[in-house]
Amino acid sequence: MQTDELASPVETDALVIGAGPVGLYLVFQLGLQGIRAHVLDTLRHAGGQPVELYGDKPIYDIPGLPACTGQELADRLLQQVAPFQPAFHFGQLVAAIERLADNWFVVSTDKGLTFRTRSVFIAAGVGAFLPKKLALAELAPFEDTQVLYHPPEALDVTGQHIVIAGGDQAALEWAIQLAERPAARAARSITLLHRRDVLQVDEHTLARWHELLREGLVSFVVGQIKGVLQSDGPHRTMTGLHISHPDGTESNCVADRLVVLQGISPKLGPLSNWGLAMSRKQLTVDTSTFATSQPGIFAIGDIVHYPGKKKLLACGFHEGVLAAFGAAEFLHPERTGPLEYTSSSQRLQQLLGVSGPA
Amino acid sequence: MQTDELASPVETDALVIGAGPVGLYLVFQLGLQGIRAHVLDTLRHAGGQPVELYGDKPIYDIPGLPACTGQELADRLLQQVAPFQPAFHFGQLVAAIERLADNWFVVSTDKGLTFRTRSVFIAAGVGAFLPKKLALAELAPFEDTQVLYHPPEALDVTGQHIVIAGGDQAALEWAIQLAERPAARAARSITLLHRRDVLQVDEHTLARWHELLREGLVSFVVGQIKGVLQSDGPHRTMTGLHISHPDGTESNCVADRLVVLQGISPKLGPLSNWGLAMSRKQLTVDTSTFATSQPGIFAIGDIVHYPGKKKLLACGFHEGVLAAFGAAEFLHPERTGPLEYTSSSQRLQQLLGVSGPA
Repeated sequence: MQTDELASPVETDALVIGAGPVGLYLVFQLGLQGIRAHVLDTLRHAGGQPVELYGDKPIYDIPGLPACTGQELADRLLQQVAPFQPAFHFGQLVAAIERLADNWFVVSTDKGLTFRTRSVFIAAGVGAFLPKKLALAELAPFEDTQVLYHPPEALDVTGQHIVIAGGDQAALEWAIQLAERPAARAARSITLLHRRDVLQVDEHTLARWHELLREGLVSFVVGQIKGVLQSDGPHRTMTGLHISHPDGTESNCVADRLVVLQGISPKLGPLSNWGLAMSRKQLTVDTSTFATSQPGIFAIGDIVHYPGKKKLLACGFHEGVLAAFGAAEFLHPERTGPLEYTSSSQRLQQLLGVSGPA
Repeated sequence: MQTDELASPVETDALVIGAGPVGLYLVFQLGLQGIRAHVLDTLRHAGGQPVELYGDKPIYDIPGLPACTGQELADRLLQQVAPFQPAFHFGQLVAAIERLADNWFVVSTDKGLTFRTRSVFIAAGVGAFLPKKLALAELAPFEDTQVLYHPPEALDVTGQHIVIAGGDQAALEWAIQLAERPAARAARSITLLHRRDVLQVDEHTLARWHELLREGLVSFVVGQIKGVLQSDGPHRTMTGLHISHPDGTESNCVADRLVVLQGISPKLGPLSNWGLAMSRKQLTVDTSTFATSQPGIFAIGDIVHYPGKKKLLACGFHEGVLAAFGAAEFLHPERTGPLEYTSSSQRLQQLLGVSGPA
């Protein structure tokens, strides 16, 4: 559910920051507590770091899953949370969080979404995964129009000169899919720009890349961007890139679009300014509820520290359980009852939509 | 691996008491630490309480497993621990544990197995699951010969009068499989004895039971055992049971064998006498390592208590992770290094037997 069309502010009991495995399982546990959540992530999809880093590589230490790729884990957790219909908001970086006089929080994102929420859950892993940006101020005015860090799969490149900056699997796959487009939708030129002449890709992709190079469908330039060539006139557009090469030479490369795929790096971002108690750059929590030092703000996963903490999913899942119980006690202290089991509790099975008729 | 034939005492780095899901995942985590474990359980199989209580019923709250029966969970965890080749010893109740002067422990079981181990892990759930016994002293001399609480699947009943005490699924299924044996291996009579005339079984089983009753292949007696009829002579054998019925009448029922299937109940057993710090009948632990008050003895799962503790598998798995790290630090402090991930560490992948040639 993308909710850019929702009336803002969105009002909710629980706002979960981070749609990685730990955030997803927290949403499931909140659901068992009868608490529906809205979920934010900077990425364009659920699954967080395991999908980004191990999307098609097996993870071997999830309890009961002898081998499971990051993508499979995300799919399984999405299936598990489905009965609780969480509202996901992808591509959203939290920009600010503010406590109101009535103890509700107002959380706003860089894309302009605003939430009014009674509780906030930080399940942001080692921080928001953001694309590594090129450190060149001249590129900034063209960002999101001609300079793209999140290129849509179906980007229209017809008749354009495309430069792709990057040398890893993601960059090469992008260049190859552009080169393989039918003539009617083809780019005018496709140039891969990387600072070294070594590409970090699998053999199959490398072989295909070399084929395309031999056929003249793509070019490879080793170098770094030093400047932007711009059109004259009132509406400035980028027309090319000024590039320096390892041998000390320089050149200009025509470019209607620059797609930057240089990997992602985690950033704590505004979290570090929320007045939450931290130690060793991680959030300090009460391990009985995973409450932070701010009542109503909970934190779990790789972003927290406590004695014995291991940055493993099996630990993050446990933290999600206790945070959900902690939040239930915080939001609905009147509901507290004995522990129930999904295998035997009719009440929980009704919440999950798996019980037969009463 | 059943190791009754092993030289005793068995020497090991780690002895895990309890082969339920939490004990199994602990064994996996110990394996990742390079620590091989022997595992004891009072039950005849791995999987513990979920297999006993929810063997074919779904559990919905295991992270990443939207619906999973107790048996499937056990199978998945057994597959996960397989690379580490743990040695299982089933049907063993721990009888005593003793610390030697050299800080090794000697652990002995009711069946006469003895272990010399450097560390002990209590993952015993709510205690050992033991069959509920009949409270009649006269039955004791015939236990394991004519009175069976753990009947082997292939029990020879040829030509014998068999009485089955119990009224649930397990008791009925046992009676039915006896009644369905070919004539050459058939019992002379099969009597189900239950204190009430209500049987707690599924419809399919009940229908089959009524068929067998109509065909005269089984009998049903409502009542309770009040005494044992015995043969005269030097080698006393049980020949029948004296039974009282709800209407106040009494009768004698011929019986060469009494199979008691009245369910199981958890017992802490000797654990409660090991000098371990407890609170509310549960073991007190250091939540950074899950060490008990006795160095070298760790405890995880439903048997422990700490602030916020929830008796859920997702929590027990986390506890297993931290106990394995705690044990590694205790057993091999010299090996301590940075946290490694199964998805990326060649060393862990070699331990798991999933890495390609170096």
